[in-house]
Amino acid sequence: MPVNYVTPPATSIYSVAGVSLGVAKAGIRKPGRCDLAVIKLDQGCTVGAVFTQNCFRAAPVQVAVKHLDSGREIRGMVVNTGVANAGTGTSGLAAAYDTCAALAWLIECEPRQVLPFSTGVILEPLPLKPILDGLPACIEYLSEDRWLEAAHAIMTTDTVPKATSRKCVIQGRAVTVTGIAKGAGMIRPNMATMLGFIATDVGISSRLMDTLVKEVADGSFNCISIDGDTSTNDSFVLISTHRSGVKFLTGEEAGWEDAKTQIISVALELAQAIVRDGEGATKFITIHVDGGSDEAECRRVGDAIANSPLVKTAFNASDANLGRILAAIGAAGVLDLDPTNVRVWLGDLLVIEGGRRAEAYDEQMADEVMNKEEIVVRVDLDRGGAKATIYTCDLSVEYIDINANYRS
Amino acid sequence: MPVNYVTPPATSIYSVAGVSLGVAKAGIRKPGRCDLAVIKLDQGCTVGAVFTQNCFRAAPVQVAVKHLDSGREIRGMVVNTGVANAGTGTSGLAAAYDTCAALAWLIECEPRQVLPFSTGVILEPLPLKPILDGLPACIEYLSEDRWLEAAHAIMTTDTVPKATSRKCVIQGRAVTVTGIAKGAGMIRPNMATMLGFIATDVGISSRLMDTLVKEVADGSFNCISIDGDTSTNDSFVLISTHRSGVKFLTGEEAGWEDAKTQIISVALELAQAIVRDGEGATKFITIHVDGGSDEAECRRVGDAIANSPLVKTAFNASDANLGRILAAIGAAGVLDLDPTNVRVWLGDLLVIEGGRRAEAYDEQMADEVMNKEEIVVRVDLDRGGAKATIYTCDLSVEYIDINANYRS
Repeated sequence: MPVNYVTPPATSIYSVAGVSLGVAKAGIRKPGRCDLAVIKLDQGCTVGAVFTQNCFRAAPVQVAVKHLDSGREIRGMVVNTGVANAGTGTSGLAAAYDTCAALAWLIECEPRQVLPFSTGVILEPLPLKPILDGLPACIEYLSEDRWLEAAHAIMTTDTVPKATSRKCVIQGRAVTVTGIAKGAGMIRPNMATMLGFIATDVGISSRLMDTLVKEVADGSFNCISIDGDTSTNDSFVLISTHRSGVKFLTGEEAGWEDAKTQIISVALELAQAIVRDGEGATKFITIHVDGGSDEAECRRVGDAIANSPLVKTAFNASDANLGRILAAIGAAGVLDLDPTNVRVWLGDLLVIEGGRRAEAYDEQMADEVMNKEEIVVRVDLDRGGAKATIYTCDLSVEYIDINANYRS
Repeated sequence: MPVNYVTPPATSIYSVAGVSLGVAKAGIRKPGRCDLAVIKLDQGCTVGAVFTQNCFRAAPVQVAVKHLDSGREIRGMVVNTGVANAGTGTSGLAAAYDTCAALAWLIECEPRQVLPFSTGVILEPLPLKPILDGLPACIEYLSEDRWLEAAHAIMTTDTVPKATSRKCVIQGRAVTVTGIAKGAGMIRPNMATMLGFIATDVGISSRLMDTLVKEVADGSFNCISIDGDTSTNDSFVLISTHRSGVKFLTGEEAGWEDAKTQIISVALELAQAIVRDGEGATKFITIHVDGGSDEAECRRVGDAIANSPLVKTAFNASDANLGRILAAIGAAGVLDLDPTNVRVWLGDLLVIEGGRRAEAYDEQMADEVMNKEEIVVRVDLDRGGAKATIYTCDLSVEYIDINANYRS
């Protein structure tokens, strides 16, 4: 079960005018579950996306990048779970393209106006027939209020669907931001096997979209780590339908910061939901690193703590084994870091200062913090004004069980 | 139990003239086990050492570096297990120094002629009294044939003591190389909570020693990874007693390459023993990466595979989940790597070529390789002539159990 995350009821996931969704049980890898989703966009939407940094980009990622680069308006997206269509060579590329062509034919647009997404097992060929057979059912089922069903259809080892939504007033008009995401392992900064789709009826110009989508990813999906692994398929898509009447062309209009904040908060909530539902997770851990000379080194320290199996197992056991945190900071590759300036807090408790256990350290108080489901670690490097926050979970026996048996 | 490693019988661990060892049950953290060891060197030895790259160097490491830098001949070493004396500030430094002073008084030398080593829990103060009380027993017990007992006394979560030894003929004379090591977690390239001590009666000049000790570490302890964590206390010491009559001053003498090969092979056997006894390990995995533009990128790819929790759990489950290996290679941060040139072998079986599953791939044959206790993965990057080899083990449920309960 996720750590303090419950999927919101369908009634609190608001539809976004201009975006309709449909799902189907295509039987791509296992029968009887929704494993295919279509997101259809009305004319006039603006779409931005960021993809995995892995050299082995999956076929759908390569095709999506090409289709976005064509500059044509995006009208549809097709997402399958079960098979990632990664490490599948030219026939994988053909399969991803054929999927786009099939959806394009059904929704009457060009194949390059469709983006494909896949998640699941790597190196297996994508079974094209069940996908092509399943698409008409998705189309027949299209509706603006199927966000939660789509969130369900894109799950792999996720235990719950992940969705969130908010309404607010910008420039005096009601606007909506709604998003869904999947991902529970192979998650680390710079994304991982995660898919995220966020739509808003706020009008965002193409010019603003390119930088916004990166900024949103950096403030959300790029701040999470479950196991330090980076996947071949990560994709995050931001859709602006322009249907609220609120428009941003240059980013200098009133309300732009508000709009950004709303979008980032939806993305961050989804990103955190991914960590809360991390494979085998029993704790949600927030790592604030401040006092760095630049943001990059703060992230490096946060990552080193978040990705240390020894730190993660200590969290799992609720054991205030602070030495492991210290060792992870020291191994983060921050040159000329002076250990005697580093301070570490567990919750509100100062536990390390001067490179050693704090004078006032009290093991019982530390254990109290460690026993909670939500733990905040704060590290002050005391060498500058930069900071970063990383979210992670613990490493449990269940993680091994899930991943040892993933393909069976 | 370690993967295909059995501690050799005491009769096959040869003494090295000029080095005597003693151990004691000092009760440093738990009663009733040997937890203190002394290594005493006769006059005229040459000593080289390399230490952890972690910024948080433990107090004994800081003191050892200082004592080596003093240029005085090293006469003794004291090693305790149970408490690492790391993250202990100035009082930790004082405790490490006091330990040296106590041994120096007993063996009649200066404190700076003694090197201290500690391994165990981080951030706990070093209990000085049991160490000082235990030292006389170590001294009383000193003998040239106690290598195996010393290997036992420096263990932490190791399940077996690690020692190896060989005799050979160099320049027409019999020479001996003998070593011991400990370490079973927090192990990654650039060392980790590992201690290694190797002695030889081959005469090695100070000038040669400095580069040799680094070369030996790079060819052995820096090629292993258990969990990607880097400790505060790693130390590897190489001792030359000059007692065989074989002397190397410049490295241009006949037999120098032979001597180096013998020393490196002892170090590599100890390094591999550490991996074979990795916490919870059930498989021993050798990762050869060749065809790289330089050794550094080959190591980076090897490390990425060795440190991926998903790859390691797949090995644990004997599951030929090759996509995870592909994803790890892609995430290794090798710029402009062309995935379509990468080939991967499992044992002798070509499994990935052209960035996809090899044409002749046969799941049953791959499973046969994965089911073995010893698995060789070979990656050809096809972009140059450099190569590297990394040794690692799988990640099992037992690893979590061991580390979740380490302090209890």
